Formats: sequence, structure tokens, C-alpha cells
Amino acid sequence: MSAEFILYSYFRSSASHRVRIALHYKGIPFEYRAVHLLNNGGEQNSEHYRKLNPIGQVPTLIHKSHALSQSVAIIDYLEQVAPRPALYPTDAYERARVLQVCENVNSSIQPLHNLLVTQELERRFQATQKQRDEWNGFWINRGLEALEHILARTAGLYSFGNEITAADCFVVPQLMSAQRFGVDYTQYETLARVYDACMKVDAFKKAAPQAQPDAPQS
Amino acid sequence: MSAEFILYSYFRSSASHRVRIALHYKGIPFEYRAVHLLNNGGEQNSEHYRKLNPIGQVPTLIHKSHALSQSVAIIDYLEQVAPRPALYPTDAYERARVLQVCENVNSSIQPLHNLLVTQELERRFQATQKQRDEWNGFWINRGLEALEHILARTAGLYSFGNEITAADCFVVPQLMSAQRFGVDYTQYETLARVYDACMKVDAFKKAAPQAQPDAPQS
Repeated sequence: MSAEFILYSYFRSSASHRVRIALHYKGIPFEYRAVHLLNNGGEQNSEHYRKLNPIGQVPTLIHKSHALSQSVAIIDYLEQVAPRPALYPTDAYERARVLQVCENVNSSIQPLHNLLVTQELERRFQATQKQRDEWNGFWINRGLEALEHILARTAGLYSFGNEITAADCFVVPQLMSAQRFGVDYTQYETLARVYDACMKVDAFKKAAPQAQPDAPQS
Repeated sequence: MSAEFILYSYFRSSASHRVRIALHYKGIPFEYRAVHLLNNGGEQNSEHYRKLNPIGQVPTLIHKSHALSQSVAIIDYLEQVAPRPALYPTDAYERARVLQVCENVNSSIQPLHNLLVTQELERRFQATQKQRDEWNGFWINRGLEALEHILARTAGLYSFGNEITAADCFVVPQLMSAQRFGVDYTQYETLARVYDACMKVDAFKKAAPQAQPDAPQS
């Protein structure tokens, strides 16, 4: 019998990471299917995968033979089909503020240091590894500075008060990416504190890149 | 007496454009406050504006002295405080699919041809105007190809069936940007058809860049 929920994911993809946190936090069992973004010219470009996700990005969630992509849309869907525990507050403004933080990561930071972008920088401008690292660092620092400013006013134990929200599903993977790209996020006091608190929660441990079946052993 | 809703907008910003469509479609009156992204080193960088929007992007919506940024979050908020006419379907999967299309634009296309990005390409890699245009064209074409693929299966008169949805609020401004960057979107049959249908609707006419008070007279 195949699982009710299937997640096409890459261990190191931060968009996949966000959805894994949401699934684990809501206690939804799912089958993990690895899509390797570098092997074989990128498995996300295979004909099979492009049928599920025409834009060729991970993650894709399958539920009841429906395919869904884009982390914000997937988490919105999970919130509807599995409302408890909630990842969004019920108040309209509070809810929108949580979504705003998700988008600060999803649209204003992450797309700019995406693998595809640095590949194009190399192809078009012969950007060296150092230049690509600087490019990534620039966008990450710029975004984290703004996030720190916002979360300094909204955070309790987590990004918004003392309950886990969708914002945490976006902030934590972004901080892990920052680390991977050599950006020291601990200079952002609130972000660092929220990160540490989240990483004590089971769902965040289970969703971490190194805990995935496609992560290299080491 | 000041208006209940205030929108900080730039006539040519496609994220501002999305929110203007939503406001007009829902028939919500609002005060328009222009933020010029190029004058005076970019008015979005002023201390006053950064207090409203720490990431320094347009648009920002003010309602009941609350400030909200990020177009997806603002439209989610409008949907809650002014639910009719609806911009999202009620079915969970249909709703998420609409949101997925919004994100295909908001996170997978638009951030990559944003003014800030091409400014950085120029500063770091001495990208010429031609190279910057090619960069923008590359990401726009890549994204529109995927969108066409998706909308070919979902569109009726509009992006999703025969009712206006949030997806149209994102698709139409993206197609206008494409045009501005010299990408001929009419090669994408479904997109071109949806665009024409939307532009017959009053809200889309009122929200168009050239109809805004800060658009240059010509």
C-alpha cells in the first residue's frame, strides 16, 4: 500500500526542508522520495518529474493523486487538510504577518541564492566560486537584517510569540542555508535565539537535512 | 479624514500592481501613496519608509494603523477582511493550486529580474544593458513556459476556470513586465488569452501602471 502523502524532496533544498518541518509538526506520515538536484544533470529535469512539477523545482507533495508544488502553497494545503496543530494564527492580521515573514524568506531572500542563479552567474559572467559566495552572502545578509528587525518585535520563544508557526518553517531552513554559505547568523540576536529554540523541537530535528535518507553518510 | 486603507505603491512595481488589482476587484477604496524607486536614491530606502517596511520593498498596505508588506500576505489579508468577491476557491486543493501559481510568479520568476538584482549584476560583473536584458529575458521565458504548461490545464476564461482568482492578480503584472523587458508573451497561447480576458475587466484597467497617479504623462 502506498502512503497517503508522498514528498519529493532533496535533503539540502530549503524549500523541501520547510515542508518537512510542517509535515512532522502536524504529525502527518509521508513517503520520502529523493530527487537529486545534481546527479544525472539534475533529476528534477527528468521527464517523469517535470510532469509532476513543470518548473522543475523541489519539493512536490502528492496527496490523493493530486500534485502540488511551492512550499507556501503546500503548507497552506496541509493547514487545511490537517488543521491541528495549527501553523497560522486565526486573527487576520496576525495570520498575514506570519505569511509576510514566510514571503520575506521565500521571495525576497532564497530565490536569489538558489543553485540555478549561481549556475547562471558562472555561465554568463564567469563568476568565480568566491564571487558566487559573495553574491549569496550579500542577499542572505540583506534579508536576515530585515528579518531580525521584524522578529525583534514579534518573537517570543519562536518567531511569533510562544507557539510554532509557519514563519519558523521558513526561518530555520534559511538560517541553515546561511550557515552553509558561510554567513554567521548568530550576529542576529533574535534569529539565533529562535533557531536554538526551534531545534529543540522534535519536528525540526526530524526535518533537518542531515536526518534525511538522501543525506550523505558522515 | 484619512482613508481606511492606504497603499504605498510604485506605478511600475509588479508586486504593487498585484495588490492594486485585488483592491479594485474587491471594490475597496484606498489612498494611493507613491514611493519612487529611483528618485533620491530610491524613496523605499528613506528612514520613514523603512520603518513601515524594513526590507525596503513596495508595496506596503496600511489598515487600522497596521502595516503589512509582501503581496501574497496582503492579498491573503484582504481576502479575510473583505471576503467577497473571493479571490481564492473554497476547495482546499483548488485554493492551494491558485496559491501555487501566485508563487510561481512571486518566488520563481519575479525576484530574479527585480531592479535590485540587475543593479547588483552591473555593480559586481559590469553587466552591460544587453547582458541585463538577456538575464531578465532568460528567467521570464523560463518561468512563462512553466506557467503556460500549468495554465493550459487549469484556465477557462481566466487563469483558473471562469472566475477571477488571485492567480490572475499575479499573472497579468508578470506578463506586463515581460513585455517591458522585450519578451513576447503572445507565444504562450493560454497566457495571452487570459491576459486579454483580464484586461477587459474594470479592476485590471484601474490597476494598470499607466493609470496610476505617479505614472509619467505621455
